Amino acid sequence: MKYNLPHKTIERLSQYRRALLICLEKGQTHIYSHEIARIQHITAVQVRRDLMLIGYTGTLRKGYNVKELIELIGEIIDSSEGINVAIVGMGNLGRALINYFIGKRSHLRIVASFDINPDKIGNTMSGVPCFSIDDLPQIVKEKNIRIGIMTVPAEFASQTADLLVKSGIKGILNYTPKPVNVPDDVYLEEYDMITSLEKVAFYVKLNEQKIV
Amino acid sequence: MKYNLPHKTIERLSQYRRALLICLEKGQTHIYSHEIARIQHITAVQVRRDLMLIGYTGTLRKGYNVKELIELIGEIIDSSEGINVAIVGMGNLGRALINYFIGKRSHLRIVASFDINPDKIGNTMSGVPCFSIDDLPQIVKEKNIRIGIMTVPAEFASQTADLLVKSGIKGILNYTPKPVNVPDDVYLEEYDMITSLEKVAFYVKLNEQKIV
Repeated sequence: MKYNLPHKTIERLSQYRRALLICLEKGQTHIYSHEIARIQHITAVQVRRDLMLIGYTGTLRKGYNVKELIELIGEIIDSSEGINVAIVGMGNLGRALINYFIGKRSHLRIVASFDINPDKIGNTMSGVPCFSIDDLPQIVKEKNIRIGIMTVPAEFASQTADLLVKSGIKGILNYTPKPVNVPDDVYLEEYDMITSLEKVAFYVKLNEQKIV
Repeated sequence: MKYNLPHKTIERLSQYRRALLICLEKGQTHIYSHEIARIQHITAVQVRRDLMLIGYTGTLRKGYNVKELIELIGEIIDSSEGINVAIVGMGNLGRALINYFIGKRSHLRIVASFDINPDKIGNTMSGVPCFSIDDLPQIVKEKNIRIGIMTVPAEFASQTADLLVKSGIKGILNYTPKPVNVPDDVYLEEYDMITSLEKVAFYVKLNEQKIV
């Protein structure tokens, strides 16, 4: 195990790559830490610290090599053979995620979706087939799916997480508003949209109080 | 300005309230810090520290009063008169957000949505009317909208953020994969689904390497 990096560094490396890919598309070959920092709304010191952690240094004159840095970040955060992903719950959010990921990162492949609605089962969206939730354990094995994204209604959160774990899933991204429990060997990431909106609302309120 | 709390504390207070609301529904009147901690996958010390920051202490015997704590968190993070919110971009994600928020938090009201697609403009979804993006400045003023949620395609991110800022929006929640720039008096929160998935994938890879 070469890299045991802080969670926040992993997130930022992913974000740096996203910014670097845009620069590459525009034909930019080199970039300074302060340019990355400005795009990401953080300090240049933070960028340099993260990149030092992965052993990359730029040159004073030209900054970082965009292409090299994209490749290095890929070596660190991507799995060389790629990872297969399933979406559980094909409501609006599940469909948004499929559309969103298609063609974005070749090493993260959404290979299946699951639902309980007979109208959805059997359909294919952007190349992703929808299966019955009853077939999840079998499909997970057949397709070597290692990550499950949960976009089911909150009341199904716990049982969906349990089913994913029992089926051998090693990582869960939980988009339901209900926190779930998983064993230690399963990595869990939870995101609640209400928390983000409440945070924005709090700071809007705070800023207004400052002005008054 | 009574409370200038760390960003992470604000997020956790919102999450504690979410957990407490579920407890309240179940008829639970009191809760210990270690119970909240277990639901949120954090330490009891962290819970107690956050609640001390907002001046709340439980009793050793019974823990925290669930109802009191929900009300106190509300006083701190909610705006007393509520905040009106708009969603810009009525694709799958925009629709998912409307469904998701309806009836969840009464002080955060999604009062309008915007799109460029004539088929969507004029429609109403879960009581939220969809307007033309051209009418955004006017509707924002009329409806006193202070927060904008961006769910437009990445290529429209910058211009949408600019339009929201110019129209007087004070907080932006950016769900596009493209970071945007806003003036200092506008609070910006950005969330990229790919970053979350890449983080899960990284830790799945890491855990597998540990086992091998």
